[in-house]
Order: sequence, then structure tokens, then C-alpha cells
Amino acid sequence: MVQVNVTLTQTIKKLLEEKKFSTLRDILITMMPYDIAAVFEELQDEKMPILFRLLPKELAAETFVEMDENTQQFLIHGFSDSELKEVVDELFVDDAVDLIEEMPANVVKRILRTADKDMRKQINELLKYPEDSAGSIMTTEFISLRPDMTAEMAIKRIRRTGVDKETIYTCYVNDENNKLIGITTVKDLLLANDDDVVRDMMEENVIAVHTLDDQEKVAQMFSNYDFLALPVVDNEQRTVGIVTIDDAIDVIQEEATEDIEKMAAVLPSDKPYMKTGVFGIYAKRVPWLLVLMLSATFTSTIISSFDNVLQRIIILSSFIPMITGSGGNAGSQASVSVIRALSLGEIEFKNIFKVLWKEFRVAVLCGLTLAVANFIKLLIFDLRGYEGTGAPMLIALAVSLTIWGTIVMAKIVGSSLPLLAKKIGFDPAVMANPLISTVCDSLSLLIYFAVATLIIPQLTQI
Amino acid sequence: MVQVNVTLTQTIKKLLEEKKFSTLRDILITMMPYDIAAVFEELQDEKMPILFRLLPKELAAETFVEMDENTQQFLIHGFSDSELKEVVDELFVDDAVDLIEEMPANVVKRILRTADKDMRKQINELLKYPEDSAGSIMTTEFISLRPDMTAEMAIKRIRRTGVDKETIYTCYVNDENNKLIGITTVKDLLLANDDDVVRDMMEENVIAVHTLDDQEKVAQMFSNYDFLALPVVDNEQRTVGIVTIDDAIDVIQEEATEDIEKMAAVLPSDKPYMKTGVFGIYAKRVPWLLVLMLSATFTSTIISSFDNVLQRIIILSSFIPMITGSGGNAGSQASVSVIRALSLGEIEFKNIFKVLWKEFRVAVLCGLTLAVANFIKLLIFDLRGYEGTGAPMLIALAVSLTIWGTIVMAKIVGSSLPLLAKKIGFDPAVMANPLISTVCDSLSLLIYFAVATLIIPQLTQI
Repeated sequence: MVQVNVTLTQTIKKLLEEKKFSTLRDILITMMPYDIAAVFEELQDEKMPILFRLLPKELAAETFVEMDENTQQFLIHGFSDSELKEVVDELFVDDAVDLIEEMPANVVKRILRTADKDMRKQINELLKYPEDSAGSIMTTEFISLRPDMTAEMAIKRIRRTGVDKETIYTCYVNDENNKLIGITTVKDLLLANDDDVVRDMMEENVIAVHTLDDQEKVAQMFSNYDFLALPVVDNEQRTVGIVTIDDAIDVIQEEATEDIEKMAAVLPSDKPYMKTGVFGIYAKRVPWLLVLMLSATFTSTIISSFDNVLQRIIILSSFIPMITGSGGNAGSQASVSVIRALSLGEIEFKNIFKVLWKEFRVAVLCGLTLAVANFIKLLIFDLRGYEGTGAPMLIALAVSLTIWGTIVMAKIVGSSLPLLAKKIGFDPAVMANPLISTVCDSLSLLIYFAVATLIIPQLTQI
Repeated sequence: MVQVNVTLTQTIKKLLEEKKFSTLRDILITMMPYDIAAVFEELQDEKMPILFRLLPKELAAETFVEMDENTQQFLIHGFSDSELKEVVDELFVDDAVDLIEEMPANVVKRILRTADKDMRKQINELLKYPEDSAGSIMTTEFISLRPDMTAEMAIKRIRRTGVDKETIYTCYVNDENNKLIGITTVKDLLLANDDDVVRDMMEENVIAVHTLDDQEKVAQMFSNYDFLALPVVDNEQRTVGIVTIDDAIDVIQEEATEDIEKMAAVLPSDKPYMKTGVFGIYAKRVPWLLVLMLSATFTSTIISSFDNVLQRIIILSSFIPMITGSGGNAGSQASVSVIRALSLGEIEFKNIFKVLWKEFRVAVLCGLTLAVANFIKLLIFDLRGYEGTGAPMLIALAVSLTIWGTIVMAKIVGSSLPLLAKKIGFDPAVMANPLISTVCDSLSLLIYFAVATLIIPQLTQI
């Protein structure tokens, strides 16, 4: 199995120094595009064009697609127009579009000028679709069949036209108006008799997506239905492209990363962590940190307005982090479960009462366990010095009741906010942990002071 | 596009009441297995066998695979032995293994008794592999070719033996000892001349995984290399099975869910949220809640040991939630970025110094922004009543310096702990937010009290 490790990259660097080009070529053609691209990222800039020119045409294009945008841009700058054309001609249209979306304007102009007329037209078509739509991730290169073909004719057509198609395994049957009327697979065609007609063997209940559908929905359909490719249709039900499973996997990974980032109060980023500069990361993180710090003013205000309570029994203040912490943890457990279930399409807004009822029962149980454990712990450890005052039992009771109330409140808040966000068209993941924590912090403090003043008589005696 | 919505399920229920079986059958055969399975989950138990018997054999098996385990188990109980055999015979071996792993012992016995001898052997082979290994998610049904076949012979072989194979599109070339020596695709075979020899067209640099490799690694390879299937070999490099991309997608989704759950201090669960009972969810959540509540004892202890400080300037205690909160947020931003980059294979332990240097610079910037914002906010709002005492400037300075120190500390802790966990063989995601928060909470309080006593003279005057 080929694996990129330092040694291989070092060998390649050494061979480059020594100008052993034919050995290098022999090594490169045994490698996968993804791994070759990884080697490029370890090279000094001036060595890149030399190494790139050693790659056979098709492998060069495939490797180019896997590179990060800095490397791509650097290479393009070094390319002659004919070299650029060679790479662009080998790209699939959707990869060319991805490239164009990442490059600065002057590079885009050069790419479009080099692409042949037909490809330029297709690229411009695809560029029209909004970001994150099915249209923006689809390719226009697919196998189209007519319903009256025989299996033999269909296979002949695939053998004639398949070279440039990203996938030949799913074939789309379109009528004379280019309306999608069925799909069939190479597997079915191969396993059929030569003179079976496509119309009779095609699957007529086609699942298709619209050009403007969200890419997350498209990716979810791949995972539900086990497709290798999914047709994309326009308003007139005409097949305008297909999304292939490799692009769907990228979307699934991206969306999961985005959800995770949002849950941790980071603005989502398109770039991998190690490729993002310090200022880039700063810009993604500082907004939420600021918002959350300022919103903690609520908690400060609540605490200072109960100054007098805290000053009477100062030990009460030492339990604040534990109470807000438990509330925050319980709330984020609930919100994350709900957000992930929303992302995977397992629940919708209409399930809100089912979810709340479930979370309520879980919360009662969790709260009970924590309250009992906390009560015992307080009496045995934390309140040891307090026996004389007669208060430890009451303090322990107040803190434990607060824990119970906080857990129940936090689970309800944590599970309902993401669902409400979804309902009013907000992103549920943005409502996640930190924002919910701030709400839970404030509420749990209010519960704490209410319960404490109610239960401990010393706090209300003047 | 077919979509399951309440109306369709209601229609089906009504048709079932009215015993309109042929209409029902007509509707069902237009639907995808995933959607039919969704309808079953809305049905009353006693209706299920009736509806299931309406499905054509192959569709029945495909639908069965998509059902949740309760529905599957209920249906199996109702099956006669010959009905069970019909379903089991149609299953792919890997799906049969998944089924067996979820069913109770008596059902497993029935399934194994019904399966034919060859399938039983394959099932038992697969059951031997550890959970989450490549062997446990692979299927043993794949197309095997010999190197000396011509393209024409190869296609003939595929047409003869392909019916039962999960994918025919990637074909594995094995020598006489069943050692994997190359792969080729149906695309290449179709686009080749009839008398081209497989040996000359096959790709010899095969990327394969070992039966015991972790499924997460396998899934990551699909996403890096855009494969449709990946061969699985044993110690002697013999091809024993393949992993197909649909199973890889499931693994990718599962692993992302698992990471998210761990980050939110929930023990990972195999089951979808809505399918897990209240006690199941309770059991997954309460352990971490307990651990974290008890570990908050550290924070309580720190606060109580600075009782005297807090009693002198009680307003200091009102900033505690903001300080620990900001630290927790900053830490989880860093940890989540690192954990996700580890999951996606973007960084490794050897990058730790690069990561720490990057996080340090980001932290200095974030900390500075927050400290300045906080300083201004404190002087303008929170400390208004304190002008007379001469202390507000010093209090604001102490709190702001603490914020800065806390952010830097939290980012360093948040980014290094997951990397260290990975290094010593722990799961980085388990080290995530809540555990890191507890560490950050304690450290930020220590910073707070140290800075405050250092800067504010009133706190140290006796």
C-alpha cells in the first residue's frame, strides 16, 4: 500500500536535486493523485513545475485537482498557455468550476481563455448556480440514452462516448425533449440480453434533485438510498447534470465539520485547519467569543444583585461554577443530540413534543442521579466545617434541588432551541452549545438564588 | 420525486384497512426501499406482515435491510421458515451479518438455520472480525478476474457471475494463489478492445486495506481517493473481500456523529436518537454529567480558599462566570478544530509544535480583543458605582488581564490535550470540551486570584 511518509517525500526531493527524472517518473506513476498532491505541498516552490511536468497528462490533471489552492495558483502562474490548456482539457467540468471558484480573477480569465468553447459554455452554465446548491456541485458530463435503444446499442454508445464521462455506471434515459424518463445501470445492461430494449428495463421511478436544492439534502439522499450518482433536473424536468458520489462524500464531510464548528462557536470555514492562517482562524473565532463574553453580563448582573445573599453564606458562591457547569453540560448534551438528528433527517419540527417529552423524562432521571450524588458529596466533604451552624443540611438540600431543577431546565432549553431555530429558518447548529449555555447559566443562577432563599431561613432574616 | 409524508403513509394505511392489496402493491413498487421502511415504522404491528408479503422478493429484502431492528425482529417472528429463507437468500452477505449482529440469539439461530450452506459459511467468516474493523464491514461477494483473460472474456465472466455481486464496477485481478495483483474497472473493460489482456490494462499499484484496519481509516481512504470499492486483504495479501462506498458513507456519518457526541460529553450510541429509549439516553449521558459535576469540586475548592479575597471586594465574584465561560469557549474552539483535523487526517501528533505555535498566536489576538472590549465595558457599565473607592480602574485591569491570560491558557490546553490523548492511544474526542472546560475552569480561577491579589492593593492589606 502506498503511504506518504516523510521518507518518500525526502526520496523524491533528493531525486529532484539529482535530476533523476526518469526514476522520479517511475515512482510518481505508481502513486495516487491525493498522495502526489501531498508531496507537492512539502516541496519548495521552484521545484514544483519541474515535478509537475514529469506527470503523464491524465495523472497531472487528477493530481492538480487534489492540490490546495496556493499550490494550484503557483503552478498556473508558471504554466505556458499550452501547458495550462493541457491540464484544463483533462479536467472534468465540475472540477474546473471548483478551480475557477477558488482562483483570483486574472487566473480565471486565463483558464476560461484556454478552455475550449464547449467546455467554457458548460463552465459558465455551472457558475450560474448558487453556492451550496445541487447545480453548483453537479457535472454536465453523463451518459444519456434513448428509451428505444437495445441493450447492445446502449453498451456500444457507452463504449463510444464514455471516455470523457465522470461515471458511466448510471445511465440516464431521456425522451426527445431531454426530459428524464428513467435510469438504468451498466450492471443491468450487461446482465440483460443484447436485444432487450432500454424502455423495458429502465427504472421509471426516478429520484432526482432540482438544480437549486441544497447540497446537504443531496448528500443525505446518497446516504439514504445508496446511489452512485443522482440526476439533477431543471424546472422543466430536463436532465441538466448529475452529482456523483465522490462529491457527495465531500459534502457530507464538509457539513459535519461545519456543524461541529458551529457547535463550538466557531464560524464555519471552507479551508482545512492547517491551511488557514492565524488571522483567518482569529476572524472565525473572535466574533462568538466576544458575543458570549458580553452576554455573560447577564450572569454577572444576576450574581451582583444577590450580593447580600452571598455575603451571608459565602460558601454558596463556591457552588456556582458547578451548578452552571452541570447545566451547560446537560444542555449541550440535549442540543447536540437534537442538532445531529436534524442534520441526519431523523427528526423534524413536528416531532417537537415527542422530543420534549423524551428529554423531560431523561432530565428527571439525570437530575435525580446528580442531585443525590451531590447531596451525599456535600454533606461528607464540602460542608464539613459547617456542622455547628445547623445549616449544612439545608445548604446541601438547596444546592441539590437546584442541580435537579437546572438539569431539567437545561435539557428542555437545549432540545427546544435548535428545533425552534430550524422552524423559523435559522441554522440549528448556531443555536448550539455556547448560546444555549449562556441562557442556561442565567436561568440556573435564578433557580439557585430562588431555591436558596426559599429553603435557608438565615438568608431572609434581616 | 417520491417523498414520504404523512399523506402517503395515511393512504397506505387506509388501503390496508380496505384490503386493496393490488393497488398497494402498485404503489409500493414505485417506492425506494428506504421510504418503504419508513412507512413500516408508522404502521401498527399486526399490519406489517400483510404489507411485507405484498413486496416482490428483491424489493422485500432491500426494504428489510433499511428497517430498524425492532421492526425486523417483529417481522422475523411472524415469518414461516420458508418466508425467512426467501428474505435471507436475497440479502448480501454483509447485510446478513449486520442483521445477525443486531438480533437476539434465538433469532440468529433461525437465520443461520435458514441460510444455505455457502452463505452460512461466509457469514461465520465475517462474524470473526472485530467490531469496527474493515473485515466486519466488508462483503465477500466481488468480481474476481485472472490476469490472462481478455477484455471480452472478462466481460463475459461479469455477465455470467455478476448478478449476486454487490458491485461489478471494480474487478479484482488475483493470481493462482488468490493474491491480489491488480484491479480494473468495468469502464476500462468496456472502453478496451475485445482482445486486450487484463494483465496489460490492470492497475498494479493497488491500494488495499487489511482485514483488521479500523473502519474510520477505511472511510477516510474513500474520501481521499474517490474509490467506489476498496479491496480487503489478509496477512498473505489474499483478497478476502471488498468494502463498498455505500458502507463507507455510513461509517463516515457514524464517525462524525460519534465525534460530535463525545465532544458534548455523551457516550456514543449506535442507534438513531428517536429509536433510543429514555433509559438508553439516560445511560449514555449520566456518566459524564456525574464525572464533570464531581470534578467541579476543584473549582469550588479554589473559590472557597479565596473566600477572604471575595469577601473584601464581593463584585469580583460576579465576574467568575464570565471568566470561566470565556476560557471554556476559547478552549473548546481550539480543541474542536484540532479534533476534527485529526479525524480528517489533516494533522498528526508530529505537528504538535506547529499547532501550538498557531494556537498561541491566535490566542494572543483573541485574548487582546476580548481584554480591551472587557476593559471598556467594565468601566462604562459594571463598575459605575465604584468610582469613589479608587478601585474600579484596578479591578477592570485585573479582570481584563485575567481574560487575556485565560484565553491564551485555554487555547494551549484545548489544542494540546487532544493531540496528547491521540499520542498515548486515547480517543481525542473524549478529551474534548467538557473535560477541557473543567481543567480550564480551575486554571482560569487560579489566574484570576493571582492577578487580582497582585494588582489590587486592598486585597492584600490586612
